[in-house]
Amino acid sequence: MDTLIRNTTLLTFRDDALGIVEDGAIGISGDEIAYVGPASEVEESADTVIDGSGTATLPGLVNAHAHTRHTLLRGGAQDVPEIEWMNRALGPLANHMTPEDEIAGARLGVLEAVRGGVTTMGEYAGEVGRLVEEVYRPLGVRVAAIETINEVPDDRSDLGPRDRYPFDREQGEAALDRAESLFEQWGDDSLVHPAYGPQALDMVSPDLLTEICSRAREHGRDVHVHVAQGERERLQIEERYGDDETTVSVLDELGALDDFLVAVHCHGTTSEERDRLVEVGARMVACPSSIGMIDGEVPPVADFTDRGGVAGVGTDQAPGPGHHNLLREVRTASLLSKVELGDPTAIPAWQALRLATVEGAKALGIADEVGTLEEGTKADIVTVDLESLGVAPTVSRPFHTAVPNLVHSTTGREVRDVFVAGEPILRDGEFVDADPEAVVADAKERATRIFADAEDDWRAADSELVARADEGWL
Amino acid sequence: MDTLIRNTTLLTFRDDALGIVEDGAIGISGDEIAYVGPASEVEESADTVIDGSGTATLPGLVNAHAHTRHTLLRGGAQDVPEIEWMNRALGPLANHMTPEDEIAGARLGVLEAVRGGVTTMGEYAGEVGRLVEEVYRPLGVRVAAIETINEVPDDRSDLGPRDRYPFDREQGEAALDRAESLFEQWGDDSLVHPAYGPQALDMVSPDLLTEICSRAREHGRDVHVHVAQGERERLQIEERYGDDETTVSVLDELGALDDFLVAVHCHGTTSEERDRLVEVGARMVACPSSIGMIDGEVPPVADFTDRGGVAGVGTDQAPGPGHHNLLREVRTASLLSKVELGDPTAIPAWQALRLATVEGAKALGIADEVGTLEEGTKADIVTVDLESLGVAPTVSRPFHTAVPNLVHSTTGREVRDVFVAGEPILRDGEFVDADPEAVVADAKERATRIFADAEDDWRAADSELVARADEGWL
Repeated sequence: MDTLIRNTTLLTFRDDALGIVEDGAIGISGDEIAYVGPASEVEESADTVIDGSGTATLPGLVNAHAHTRHTLLRGGAQDVPEIEWMNRALGPLANHMTPEDEIAGARLGVLEAVRGGVTTMGEYAGEVGRLVEEVYRPLGVRVAAIETINEVPDDRSDLGPRDRYPFDREQGEAALDRAESLFEQWGDDSLVHPAYGPQALDMVSPDLLTEICSRAREHGRDVHVHVAQGERERLQIEERYGDDETTVSVLDELGALDDFLVAVHCHGTTSEERDRLVEVGARMVACPSSIGMIDGEVPPVADFTDRGGVAGVGTDQAPGPGHHNLLREVRTASLLSKVELGDPTAIPAWQALRLATVEGAKALGIADEVGTLEEGTKADIVTVDLESLGVAPTVSRPFHTAVPNLVHSTTGREVRDVFVAGEPILRDGEFVDADPEAVVADAKERATRIFADAEDDWRAADSELVARADEGWL
Repeated sequence: MDTLIRNTTLLTFRDDALGIVEDGAIGISGDEIAYVGPASEVEESADTVIDGSGTATLPGLVNAHAHTRHTLLRGGAQDVPEIEWMNRALGPLANHMTPEDEIAGARLGVLEAVRGGVTTMGEYAGEVGRLVEEVYRPLGVRVAAIETINEVPDDRSDLGPRDRYPFDREQGEAALDRAESLFEQWGDDSLVHPAYGPQALDMVSPDLLTEICSRAREHGRDVHVHVAQGERERLQIEERYGDDETTVSVLDELGALDDFLVAVHCHGTTSEERDRLVEVGARMVACPSSIGMIDGEVPPVADFTDRGGVAGVGTDQAPGPGHHNLLREVRTASLLSKVELGDPTAIPAWQALRLATVEGAKALGIADEVGTLEEGTKADIVTVDLESLGVAPTVSRPFHTAVPNLVHSTTGREVRDVFVAGEPILRDGEFVDADPEAVVADAKERATRIFADAEDDWRAADSELVARADEGWL
């Protein structure tokens, strides 16, 4: 074996519960897990032996939905009314980003995520292939690369909420071509899992959506759609398809409700619609910090999973929720679900840990490769220090307090080691190859320029933040 | 000057906003702040000069309400119905703690809090003087020491929810005596701020409460009461005082609504009652993670402050919310308030930072000494690294993204330096005197023993966690 981690508490998720193994060991050979079980029964040694005393070892965490290229704009847009967020707060800043800025932002966001234990990102972006090539492959991080496909102009600020967005089929076809070329370029790369990303039902024509679904069926690929994500979308659907129609009803009529569908957000769906999504085998991704911060709403992940659906969790983009820290995101999923439902048992710690691992892997369609600790699967593995201030103490009798403490107590900074496909990315809390200080310095320089260049536009857009800044609050 | 921090972004809170000073410096002489202002205008040098490049410097954070002695039971009670939490989940474990265990737990909890930037704790405990003596004074951490006063037996599990709690006046008087002796023993200690803690209206008799209020008026001390904290309290008030009475109405009739009152939690109050509390000058403390996790409710801190009230934030106890991390707690206050009100502008970052500092100091009645950065006040100061992965980048034009990033992005582990009354407690992320590894090791050993000793009682109490553990979820 190449690497062996000993004396750790394993959370394998091999069964339908957590599959806890005390005094466990896990071995890596090449890119696969070669041993999982009691430390006392390991028969082989390894080139590198890691003492995992005081740690828990989990499958690498899955951040099932993120737009990391906006990470340079962290802190740029939040605490504003939902209607202002995109066009008056974030947009005026984002318009001043270059493609190189987006890559620098993605690099920062992915490093942040990995520092917090993430080994797979669901990256949703236009020209996502550039991020794969410039960020994910160099860092050695697994990615579900979802190509954004839409037919609407980026700047829709001139349109009233009930003015139908104009559709540009050529723009949509070009994006679809980019998605197809992802499969060609990266189809054989075991770290890259491409998928289609028709952005939202108000942003693609029925024809193009039908074409995408047909391709998805043909190639056996997933289709990630932002579903029922707010008032603006709802009005567009009513204008285009009729007052009685909703995103889910139209998707159903277009034949887009299928088990290839990954429905993101879903806070505008009804319980009947969620039943229908579960019935067809569609999966859900919830981004609780993002939807809480930007919309003041709670995504219905507790309800969706209670109905038997598969769901993962994601961090969306840094401006708004503020982070790409998945352990914090599952804590947030638990806490927001509890207060939304008035039920302290909603999304308990053990379910939250499954959302972050095996269920997230299912949501991204890669659960045969990652998401559990099993011999023969890909060695995406993280260790977390349980003896840190703020997490300690943990005990194993009469139950494992590591389970609640991983979710409700960790900050994310307790992650010690991260392996992706057997390669160490983080060891003892330090990146093996990546240089986070240089990435932060580059991000700071770029952000300073972007915000300065954007100042006039940002003032002209006049979100509530402008007056707050002038009054000394920001 | 003894110490000078240069090249930092100061958040002074000197005005009614944030009082931001770029390229600032702050100097310490003895236990006081000797200089606050632009780095370029410092005239004097100092024995120790700290380069604060890339940091923000804030008043030390105020955790306005905590029971740290339960920190050894972190992870012991959460994700259960509210009705189970105290008697069936936490109680069976807590009953096996010795006084020494409580001190060890407090030591762990206070170190955790300080590591996250807290310089003042509102410590609410029976025999709180022991914690002052064994934990707070040795660590050099400021404490509002609130003596718990109640007249009810600890074990009330035999009583139905509508059975009136028996009152034991002698027990209450003994606690009141302990509170009085706090003033005598610690009244001259500038780090210790004693107060009265009649636990809740269902746990003290009208006579004793009236006596406490009279003493508070006489000595100019605060009275901290858990107010309207749930169903169990509500039923007791109805049984004892009549169906039309509530905690706030009875407190009003007893003359306990006054500006010495610090009302903790308040999730069972009406908006009219909150108006009345604000009107009399009572202050509020919210513990959003705790009340969210244990009750599935959101404390009305946004509403209370909107009505003009003063409020601070606290972490309550580790089992349940999981932590004593105040930056996380203010993020939680913001996010939970947003989803509760369906308003993404509720508790914006700038207000959240005030809750953690100057407003928290007002809530504890010590705002003349701490909570802002002003020359002549006590030098309770923290610096936070803004160039950490997950917080970076921050920019200062056209507004300070440090403000949202401190609240919505930090994990708490970015705190670099902590000074209390001029003494360095944490430098460059390391404790100057305290030994966190030893505290964690002691906590682990004690927790292992407590949980093992408690196993039979814990199983007999049969909370939902028991079956979950047996099924492999915990």
